[in-house]
Amino acid sequence: MTDEIVVVEGDGIGKEVVPAAVSVLDAVGDFEFVAAEAGDAVKERTGEALPQETYDVVADADATLFGAAGETAADVILPLRTAVDSFVNVRPAKAYPGVNALRPETDLVFLRENTEGVYSGHEDRLSADLSTLTRVVTTSASERLAEFACDYAPDGFQVAHKANVMRETDGRFRDAVVSVAEERGVETEEVLMDAFATRVCLDPTQFDVVVCPNLAGDVLSDLAAGLVGGLGLLPSANIGPDNALFEPVHGTAPDIAGEGVANPSATILSAAMLLEHLGYEDEGAAVREAVESTLAEGPRTADLGGDASTEAVTQAVIDRLD
Amino acid sequence: MTDEIVVVEGDGIGKEVVPAAVSVLDAVGDFEFVAAEAGDAVKERTGEALPQETYDVVADADATLFGAAGETAADVILPLRTAVDSFVNVRPAKAYPGVNALRPETDLVFLRENTEGVYSGHEDRLSADLSTLTRVVTTSASERLAEFACDYAPDGFQVAHKANVMRETDGRFRDAVVSVAEERGVETEEVLMDAFATRVCLDPTQFDVVVCPNLAGDVLSDLAAGLVGGLGLLPSANIGPDNALFEPVHGTAPDIAGEGVANPSATILSAAMLLEHLGYEDEGAAVREAVESTLAEGPRTADLGGDASTEAVTQAVIDRLD
Ligand SMILES: CC(C)[C@H](C(=O)O)[C@@H](O)C(=O)O
Ligand SMILES: CC(C)[C@H](C(=O)O)[C@@H](O)C(=O)O
Repeated sequence: MTDEIVVVEGDGIGKEVVPAAVSVLDAVGDFEFVAAEAGDAVKERTGEALPQETYDVVADADATLFGAAGETAADVILPLRTAVDSFVNVRPAKAYPGVNALRPETDLVFLRENTEGVYSGHEDRLSADLSTLTRVVTTSASERLAEFACDYAPDGFQVAHKANVMRETDGRFRDAVVSVAEERGVETEEVLMDAFATRVCLDPTQFDVVVCPNLAGDVLSDLAAGLVGGLGLLPSANIGPDNALFEPVHGTAPDIAGEGVANPSATILSAAMLLEHLGYEDEGAAVREAVESTLAEGPRTADLGGDASTEAVTQAVIDRLD
Repeated sequence: MTDEIVVVEGDGIGKEVVPAAVSVLDAVGDFEFVAAEAGDAVKERTGEALPQETYDVVADADATLFGAAGETAADVILPLRTAVDSFVNVRPAKAYPGVNALRPETDLVFLRENTEGVYSGHEDRLSADLSTLTRVVTTSASERLAEFACDYAPDGFQVAHKANVMRETDGRFRDAVVSVAEERGVETEEVLMDAFATRVCLDPTQFDVVVCPNLAGDVLSDLAAGLVGGLGLLPSANIGPDNALFEPVHGTAPDIAGEGVANPSATILSAAMLLEHLGYEDEGAAVREAVESTLAEGPRTADLGGDASTEAVTQAVIDRLD
């Protein structure tokens, strides 16, 4: 049976890097691609950034490859994460040979809780002066994340939180994660999220797999992106129980959109995660290696100091697959 | 009239770096020092990390110099910030010549909202599975911070937030800050807190004064600490309308406490901020310059690759004041 992959290009360079990644997928397997729309352009045309059709097709797909959305990013990606019932956002942040990185020894994976925290979306305007947001933490979501973390990192992981201030909510998160890990015999180390921010700059090799609440994962993984040389190289996977959505961590890059010079690496690496998720371990590893050797040897796009086009880099990756 | 300065050493290296800073203050002015207790040791003895007496004397003082507290840090510092009605935490993060920094060009000041956000402390255990935290944002607190920011940075500042997700609360924060700045004719630039984390690593000179909600300020200033070489050099000021509390950003450093080798620079720089706050601009500037030239020329403590004692470094700072 052919796997069905939904493809949502979105806006800006999404329209360039997603087709690049699709051509790489095409080179390693036999997939049925189903295009769906979301983002600023769709909103302008139809009034809705995320059409119900797109939500439905993503919810039903085996996997989705998403590019980026512009102003409407939150309106698109947060519901799409819900569409795949994604309880964990897997965000590797790795420095690659050949890429100028502030900390070339960085090799981290963030396992970000993907359903709750401040993203739960309950906000109220209680008076002319005061608004509140209800931050939600459940033991069940924390345990589900912890089970995933134990499978992903059986040799142990770090848990970043702010339970010294958010005692009840991050305390619940921490207790749930640590107790699942204890039951499973997996070692954990706790670190306050602010201390993590300092320590990861001083020595990123202190950490490897970092489990954290939703917003902590958002900010700390972007920090790690800074250590490896920017967002242009970071893939991510939103994993649900029977479904998943893969996306580069970067945005639409409006300054270079339409010029055919965007770096497709993050999206191709996201496609490699997609392949592994669908069970194509060898193909996923091959794509990742092809991207890594292209980063090391070139050709390179302008963000990495080269002058190659998106297409030339993509072709170089495909050529290395043979 | 002699200014009264309350001195709270706290635990660990607080007992070493605070006396160091007091001897510097003694060298430049005529102050009445009033000792007060807080922290783990007091809790062990009396059951309370922050005795009511300490709270009261801090609330009544012209200024307080605080060291650090151990396990009880949150129980001590959060109420003490309330005691001085502190609406802003001023956190400079600057790389100094002579100190090994990941980004030597870093020169930032964070103006952190100091009363609300997730620090408002309202948490509820709603069921066996679910806890909530009520994040509070008011226009009044945001405006008070913005007025301070306009005085502090009349040439403009950045506003970091996550209003694309926390639309109502961080939206309120952003709108209040930006509209005060507009009225005052001060330029602002907005940046999402996750994007800030990446961008500050890639090029910290893009930013100078960064206004942010409470937890964002906590994490992003600790990130900047990582760029300048660690927490050992970062002072801070908790400013209230008629009162203020000054503290190094670092903690109690239990690994080296009691050995007389702690780096007193962050606390002495906090004392310099205290001097300026009390109107001793020249003395404050002189102390800061003395610390900077000691960092550049030595002697240095072990954390900076030297082997000088806390006392020797403090004496070197005092000698440079003459
Ligand atoms: C666009 C935004 C809602 C999103 C988030 O905060 O999760 C983005 O920053 C990310 O990290 O994927
Ligand atoms: C100790 C803790 C409560 C405190 C905070 O979160 O504000 C600390 O991290 C700080 O930054 O001063």
